[in-house]
Amino acid sequence: MKNRILIVGGVAGGASCATRARRLDETAEIIIFEKGPHVSFANCGLPYFVGDVIQQESNLTVATPQTFRERFDIEVRLLSEVVAIDRERAEILVKELTSGRTYRERYDSLVLSPGAAPVRPPLAGIDLPGVFTLRSIPDSKQIREWIERKNAKTAVVAGGGFIGLEMVENLVQRGLQVTVLEMQNQVLPPMDPEMAEPLQRRLRERGVNLALGDGVLAFEPSGQDGIVVRTSKGARHKAGIVILGIGVRPETGLARGAGLEIGPRGGIRVDSQMRTSDSKIWAVGDAVEVTDYVTGQAALVPLAGPATRQGRVAADVICGRVSVFRGVQGTAICSVFGLAAAITGASEKSLRRAGISDYEAVYLHPGQHAAFFPGASAIYLKLIFRRNDGRILGAQACGEDGVDKRIDVIATAIQKQGTVFDLEEAELCYAPQFGAAKDPINMAGMIAGNVMRGDVQNATWTSLSSNGVTVVDVRDREEFEMGHVPGATNIPLAEVRGRLSELPTERELRLYCGVGQRAYYASRLLKQRGYRVQNLSGGYRTFLSCRDSGMIESD
Amino acid sequence: MKNRILIVGGVAGGASCATRARRLDETAEIIIFEKGPHVSFANCGLPYFVGDVIQQESNLTVATPQTFRERFDIEVRLLSEVVAIDRERAEILVKELTSGRTYRERYDSLVLSPGAAPVRPPLAGIDLPGVFTLRSIPDSKQIREWIERKNAKTAVVAGGGFIGLEMVENLVQRGLQVTVLEMQNQVLPPMDPEMAEPLQRRLRERGVNLALGDGVLAFEPSGQDGIVVRTSKGARHKAGIVILGIGVRPETGLARGAGLEIGPRGGIRVDSQMRTSDSKIWAVGDAVEVTDYVTGQAALVPLAGPATRQGRVAADVICGRVSVFRGVQGTAICSVFGLAAAITGASEKSLRRAGISDYEAVYLHPGQHAAFFPGASAIYLKLIFRRNDGRILGAQACGEDGVDKRIDVIATAIQKQGTVFDLEEAELCYAPQFGAAKDPINMAGMIAGNVMRGDVQNATWTSLSSNGVTVVDVRDREEFEMGHVPGATNIPLAEVRGRLSELPTERELRLYCGVGQRAYYASRLLKQRGYRVQNLSGGYRTFLSCRDSGMIESD
Repeated sequence: MKNRILIVGGVAGGASCATRARRLDETAEIIIFEKGPHVSFANCGLPYFVGDVIQQESNLTVATPQTFRERFDIEVRLLSEVVAIDRERAEILVKELTSGRTYRERYDSLVLSPGAAPVRPPLAGIDLPGVFTLRSIPDSKQIREWIERKNAKTAVVAGGGFIGLEMVENLVQRGLQVTVLEMQNQVLPPMDPEMAEPLQRRLRERGVNLALGDGVLAFEPSGQDGIVVRTSKGARHKAGIVILGIGVRPETGLARGAGLEIGPRGGIRVDSQMRTSDSKIWAVGDAVEVTDYVTGQAALVPLAGPATRQGRVAADVICGRVSVFRGVQGTAICSVFGLAAAITGASEKSLRRAGISDYEAVYLHPGQHAAFFPGASAIYLKLIFRRNDGRILGAQACGEDGVDKRIDVIATAIQKQGTVFDLEEAELCYAPQFGAAKDPINMAGMIAGNVMRGDVQNATWTSLSSNGVTVVDVRDREEFEMGHVPGATNIPLAEVRGRLSELPTERELRLYCGVGQRAYYASRLLKQRGYRVQNLSGGYRTFLSCRDSGMIESD
Repeated sequence: MKNRILIVGGVAGGASCATRARRLDETAEIIIFEKGPHVSFANCGLPYFVGDVIQQESNLTVATPQTFRERFDIEVRLLSEVVAIDRERAEILVKELTSGRTYRERYDSLVLSPGAAPVRPPLAGIDLPGVFTLRSIPDSKQIREWIERKNAKTAVVAGGGFIGLEMVENLVQRGLQVTVLEMQNQVLPPMDPEMAEPLQRRLRERGVNLALGDGVLAFEPSGQDGIVVRTSKGARHKAGIVILGIGVRPETGLARGAGLEIGPRGGIRVDSQMRTSDSKIWAVGDAVEVTDYVTGQAALVPLAGPATRQGRVAADVICGRVSVFRGVQGTAICSVFGLAAAITGASEKSLRRAGISDYEAVYLHPGQHAAFFPGASAIYLKLIFRRNDGRILGAQACGEDGVDKRIDVIATAIQKQGTVFDLEEAELCYAPQFGAAKDPINMAGMIAGNVMRGDVQNATWTSLSSNGVTVVDVRDREEFEMGHVPGATNIPLAEVRGRLSELPTERELRLYCGVGQRAYYASRLLKQRGYRVQNLSGGYRTFLSCRDSGMIESD
């Protein structure tokens, strides 16, 4: 009898599981049940379809049921919702959405890939016309049509996460005036606030109204097809359209109904082989709980890359192979108005949440390529590493160009349990238009290595104004006069050796410059002369990011 | 008494050594002797200064003697050639090039960073006006002036290596008609020929005359300020200017004169602490022999990145620290007319030279980002790995965009002794404009992983027409009709399951498609049905590269 593999959900995880299973078992019977009208569509492209960057709907459909049938001998049943699992009989109950008919299908192996649904909190007016979420091609078409038909001029995007910000960009491209409401005090909540700050600046520069630390309270109709969004801080934003991008919630209804175990974060619990608490049922993608590769904690990480690899692992195991999913680093990127922000591994926020404090962070702002080559622009880079042994825990970056590359290199180093010393020695592509003889990656490793070796000691910007501390700005006079840290003394690097007597030996000196390099030089020469020196990592540029993101405690 | 560190040569390796030494030892006396008129200049920018991409000479001077004095308390003596080392007395003999005066300086530690000089073979006419090499800012100014003053319209670039090709691009930008003479049958000799082929195509498309497998025999004057370049194949190329980019040779005169050991490849021999055979003398940069990180063999790798890290290691050791240089992977990149070609680790050529045969190579041509997002373009990617355990040995890539990123990720994996299985699981940045849910890196790992797990067996394109083999093209009919491998049979993937009877079970089948994916699907389904199947990796696109680079043996 044929091995019967049934798959619930036909996007990233489900589709990759199905095709992988076919490659391993030509004789199995494989059926995908998808409740929507499309299989394996490009959901990451939806915001760009709304923004007309992707103009053809056909570009979003990666594959059709016909492709699956012809290439893989896989049957795809669209508009077919799996409504229940009968574990005892190893059957699923399928509802044909067109006819309303229900029927049963027997499985040998069942794979759940139901995804995650946009959060729709039970707020007054949330079902008003003009309030949208974005998950499917039909959703994106409805948003496009609404904007065109109602000639919407203003939008409120609730939620400043990755997808929310992609929507913001695309709505602005279409000429809408956009307000972002975000409950947290920053956009891109997975990142640390100071690392999201450059993106916040860019959003404001492009005319986006950022309402941080404020959330939706209710929606009210306003005039013809208009909506008023009332916020918890008491503001009222008028909008021609509202997009809810508050987050997603794993689709666990089917799993819960069948009594499968749910994890502490609310996703379907699976082992490292993607198997649920039922040995015949696997689950993959946005609906499952994964292990954070860095902190070891349970996490919900709705990303397409891990989903496809999980699908592959499930197929391997179903087909009798040894295969293990190693957990998720949470590598993610978002590009808005030409500025990219990316993260891999742990943030300071996630480390604190996990109760991990044995870490250190350094900041730098190297050019994405050699300064002497036209077009150089700075990457804001933050590297977090374990104090104990230099192991890399995470990195965040923000910049016009070269951000994805540096985060990908660090992601690879994290995967291989690399240390900051490895980054010092990384041998990367160098030609003037691509990098530098000391690539930003090398620089990050060296700066962190200096901390590890005790050559410098870093102070954090958040506790800037401690007692008994002298803050010294070692930039040139003109730079100092254009703006400096309150209370700082200016002694340009070139003058430090000649003005040693002006520096107190009994007080702690905290040094900064523009981006960190000159302060490092100064701190080395002072430290060797017996001064008590600490470095304010990342220089004035990081100070501004910390200040503007509200991280610096005032006296 | 002060520790006296003297450094010969003030560009990448020497400059980084000097400043690192200062950071570690505030009291040492550090002097850089540089025979040229600049210290720490951007030699990698010189071709772009010739091409007016970099317009200001001042952009090329990264630092001045004043910077070194003010920031680092380091003395720089320009136009000061170190002509001899008196090892017994630990002194160097310095010649002041402006006055001709010579004098001695005592050292505690001596660092040699003399670099490498362009090869100037003793050919007839090589000293004719209009025949240039490019190493220094004065060189580049002379080339600019010559082109402008003589109104040069044609150029011959001898040597199709990285710098040669950068010069080609910049000369074409300036409106010159350029001929490249390259002794080997390919440009970019560190790469395998088929991986350099896309760049060769691009060069020809842009009107560059590529004369491969041909070298300079002699130069003759021609008319007013013209030159005729005679080649070993008997060709005669008229040129208004000639650039010699045949290669570089380590500057070992000073080291040889002092009786320091020279390695088998002709560079200064150093240990892993960059120490020469004299315990008071270190050497770094293009003049030294390094260990190839992958093959373990001695190598000359004139690159700025390793040079700066070597300078750092030497300074560490001089200042009493434990520091080791781990060898060189040879990561390099070159961009010409919008197409980048890059390499890290071993090529098939270098493995063969090293006598290593336990390896396998796979090809792929993934888009640099999701196909549904505008602007997707293919990366030609080749991954070489050890058959034994899947360890990554090297990679090469060529494409419009995203090439540096993928090679950097693989370079990082190689540094950490990663395997193809690590690449399968790499978690990289994904948004539609940056990558794909399965990034090219994941794809490369999966394709190689399939080979490692025995799911597919690859055949090489070079032995295409063996006896007893049936070549099957599984692309669609229209693709097949636009061009195919000679003698191939066409059975589109979607028809394979229905046309099994047309395929012989006793003969070996070699499958290919456009880029490799459909052939993989077909080979899996046939293999499971008992057919003897081999995959022609990289599909028709790789076939064309192999064919056009002359790699395919004819009957």
